[in-house]
Amino acid sequence: DSKKLQISSRDGNWSIRFGGRLHLDATIVDDDVTQIGNGAEIRRFWWDVSGKIAGDWKYKLQVGLENDQVRIKDAYVSTDLGGVSVTAGNHKEPYSLEELTGSNYITFIERGLPNVFAPGRNIGLSANTGGDNWGIAAGFFTDGINNGGINNQTTDWAVTGRTHYAPIAEENRAVHLGVAGSYRGVENDTVSFNLRPEFNDGRGIVNTGAVNNVDKMIQVGPEAAVVFGPFSLQGEYHWTTVERTAGLGDADLEGGYVFASWFVTGQSRPYNAKKGTFGRVKAENAIELAARYSTVDLSEASAAATNGEEDNYTLGANYYFNPNVRLMLNYIHAEVDRVAAGTDEDIDAVVSRIQLDF
Amino acid sequence: DSKKLQISSRDGNWSIRFGGRLHLDATIVDDDVTQIGNGAEIRRFWWDVSGKIAGDWKYKLQVGLENDQVRIKDAYVSTDLGGVSVTAGNHKEPYSLEELTGSNYITFIERGLPNVFAPGRNIGLSANTGGDNWGIAAGFFTDGINNGGINNQTTDWAVTGRTHYAPIAEENRAVHLGVAGSYRGVENDTVSFNLRPEFNDGRGIVNTGAVNNVDKMIQVGPEAAVVFGPFSLQGEYHWTTVERTAGLGDADLEGGYVFASWFVTGQSRPYNAKKGTFGRVKAENAIELAARYSTVDLSEASAAATNGEEDNYTLGANYYFNPNVRLMLNYIHAEVDRVAAGTDEDIDAVVSRIQLDF
Amino acid sequence: DSKKLQISSRDGNWSIRFGGRLHLDATIVDDDVTQIGNGAEIRRFWWDVSGKIAGDWKYKLQVGLENDQVRIKDAYVSTDLGGVSVTAGNHKEPYSLEELTGSNYITFIERGLPNVFAPGRNIGLSANTGGDNWGIAAGFFTDGINNGGINNQTTDWAVTGRTHYAPIAEENRAVHLGVAGSYRGVENDTVSFNLRPEFNDGRGIVNTGAVNNVDKMIQVGPEAAVVFGPFSLQGEYHWTTVERTAGLGDADLEGGYVFASWFVTGQSRPYNAKKGTFGRVKAENAIELAARYSTVDLSEASAAATNGEEDNYTLGANYYFNPNVRLMLNYIHAEVDRVAAGTDEDIDAVVSRIQLDF
Repeated sequence: DSKKLQISSRDGNWSIRFGGRLHLDATIVDDDVTQIGNGAEIRRFWWDVSGKIAGDWKYKLQVGLENDQVRIKDAYVSTDLGGVSVTAGNHKEPYSLEELTGSNYITFIERGLPNVFAPGRNIGLSANTGGDNWGIAAGFFTDGINNGGINNQTTDWAVTGRTHYAPIAEENRAVHLGVAGSYRGVENDTVSFNLRPEFNDGRGIVNTGAVNNVDKMIQVGPEAAVVFGPFSLQGEYHWTTVERTAGLGDADLEGGYVFASWFVTGQSRPYNAKKGTFGRVKAENAIELAARYSTVDLSEASAAATNGEEDNYTLGANYYFNPNVRLMLNYIHAEVDRVAAGTDEDIDAVVSRIQLDF
Repeated sequence: DSKKLQISSRDGNWSIRFGGRLHLDATIVDDDVTQIGNGAEIRRFWWDVSGKIAGDWKYKLQVGLENDQVRIKDAYVSTDLGGVSVTAGNHKEPYSLEELTGSNYITFIERGLPNVFAPGRNIGLSANTGGDNWGIAAGFFTDGINNGGINNQTTDWAVTGRTHYAPIAEENRAVHLGVAGSYRGVENDTVSFNLRPEFNDGRGIVNTGAVNNVDKMIQVGPEAAVVFGPFSLQGEYHWTTVERTAGLGDADLEGGYVFASWFVTGQSRPYNAKKGTFGRVKAENAIELAARYSTVDLSEASAAATNGEEDNYTLGANYYFNPNVRLMLNYIHAEVDRVAAGTDEDIDAVVSRIQLDF
Repeated sequence: DSKKLQISSRDGNWSIRFGGRLHLDATIVDDDVTQIGNGAEIRRFWWDVSGKIAGDWKYKLQVGLENDQVRIKDAYVSTDLGGVSVTAGNHKEPYSLEELTGSNYITFIERGLPNVFAPGRNIGLSANTGGDNWGIAAGFFTDGINNGGINNQTTDWAVTGRTHYAPIAEENRAVHLGVAGSYRGVENDTVSFNLRPEFNDGRGIVNTGAVNNVDKMIQVGPEAAVVFGPFSLQGEYHWTTVERTAGLGDADLEGGYVFASWFVTGQSRPYNAKKGTFGRVKAENAIELAARYSTVDLSEASAAATNGEEDNYTLGANYYFNPNVRLMLNYIHAEVDRVAAGTDEDIDAVVSRIQLDF
């Protein structure tokens, strides 16, 4: 068991565990209007150290390499205060089932298009509690990592929360219902959304450019999932209202996805009813087939020529050599409908990934 | 004990130990002339590996993440040659009690203003020896880390030394006396000093700008500390003479600090009489209160509008959950007296830190 | 034994091992036309994690710090498929004996001048197989690391292979014969070669500048080595043909080196007949003397004033404290013969290195 690869003190109150992941992608693109090209890349090269201190303090320090730069991922300490788990540092805001499901465990190579609305990791303080089949989490977050001092730092902030309930939470059967919301103050007036197709084109083929005169954003995202033996269904929808000053109206952005997965070899997607997320498929030589439809409409946000609406149709096949190594293959058909006339396009891509984590 | 979190060979001659620290800060500033703003940041995210090779060689490789860049901290090998410990690589020049006391062990969130004069880490070769209650260290250092080859490298260099003596060195009582000096050749003619207030404003609210036509710098810094049960006092003073060519006179820069600390819960600040530094407070649920006065005068260095003199008054309270986790709260009142008229200012700040190391 | 510094599961099918290296250099240069200067640097500060997953999957994640940036070195997964070892990810193309011999094991501080022709690490898929005294490896590689997505990525690619045979492969006697070749498509039309002298001047004192209108490159490199007790000889030669479009002729670049090594204290250079590379000298208090001649001629590649031919004569002495710590001293005499008249120069340098790895 990989869990054994850690160092612990005799009494179990102190421990240190090392982890890492390597995601190697190769992508072939049939581009249309926008030139994209083919390529191979190290999509994720992450290291982490986590552990326990004095029995009741946990920590995690994790970095990822991107473009020869180191990005801080998880960097937090947490402890229990009367049945409530409190976390301080850089960590994911409690928002979106697919975002909260780790990149080693997601069903497709990239998360669906609506992931553009997920805040992801920021510096903050959060608390969560729950029972065997439900949970609630909320936190206060500020701008992401800036460890060069507070000088000239924009002081955006957000309050974000999520709750989930699992009316069924058995080993191979589960029903997940959840909803998350976020209220986001925007003190520097500007936001932008970069919407990549469901492969890493590295930029966001649909993007709003800078949206100015923004006062705040309000986000809501319901989510649901069903596991029935080897079959599972999962979906989310996100509404984001961008409220603007200077007499400008609100911009309503939205999008959702739904996908189905089938383990040909009979396994089940492992649902964690406490956390309300999916986890590691503990299988050898397992085969999974999946299909997803995603759609996002950013067109109210700006009149930029690059802005618009995008629909993605993705087919996926995964081969699990063992719980820590899998091969993934995705075919993505992306339809882009831009606000500017005459720049619509259809893109097709085939992406393969070899993924290992420990 | 956290010391057990290492891997050793059976004979103990080979070992590898992992360490890390996470300092999470939140800062609220009542600024005056200079706009600073509020913010949260990951002040330190450090990883290190250290160990022993073949019994008599030690190494340490340590990095810190700052602004999404990796900074090499300690990167050295050391061994004993006839009772003298010799260290080669990137390490701290032996200068200043507070600088040589690790950032996990300092009493306030930031070191005092005079830390602007401490050379910190550079690449060099140093030697140190001593007895149970005294020590002497000296080294030759060149410019800090540049591992892109020697091309276009400025070849500043320095000879730095420090000695300390502890007439009293008991478990809860100690008297520390020390003095350090540094002679620094400046081959590229230019130096600058950036003086932050005692919170991380990220730039140096008082700074000399580029001081040109510099030939060399001479630094001297006496230091003293007293521990008497839960009470302790500590102070340093630093003189830096910047000698200039082209008929320009010398600039005399100087500054010092003094602080008092009291463990309400009765513990003592742990003095290491061999190293002449302070170490980890091995306590649970301990409370420490502290007050510091710092002053630095850079005004002779340049006529830059940002240059001048700064006084800081800092109050601190620390709560030690256990030896590896502490919560810190500092209130800082900074008075800035610039060389240019009409730009003096008073700044107040409150900083909190949650700090964990392993 | 340093091999014990790893964490393994009870059944040995899962493991994690930590490694690192620190190379500290100091260089004194007697420059001539080009101003170089003296300096100290951290030449290598590398960390890695490697291990086994589920018995039959191996991985390695390795980074090096350079100029405060993190560079991904090895980042691969590998497994055996019917006696053939298959590797995917960032790894060294199978080309050049000296390149494939790790930087901890090379005889001189820097590899010889012809190393300018070695492709080094790139992202790709390779396979290798062999017997006790022979091996063959081949792979398909694309541009090096780009993990910022495939956008705007040049899609250069290469097919590279190498085979070796050791007619003698005993403990202290060996004969190595090998040859490697590479066919390299250049889709963005431009290549360049930066030829450093055999110390790290950080730029390439002879360099071709951008060579445009390149269609492809074909490389061939025979290699040989002999170990006879404490004596060894090693040499390589490389031809690189740069084929150009637009009616431009081919540029033929070439170079080689030969060196001799003698362990005064009687040890032998350890040849690995399976891999066809040299490994760790497992000795304490061993002394090695060595001399090398290298030559490279890039002059057909461009008419740039910085381009030309370079010969290096290097003398080296190594002291092995133990298998993991060595002190190196090299004297390098470099003769540069540029294509532009009047810029020839002779450079002398003395470089010392303290090297530790674990």
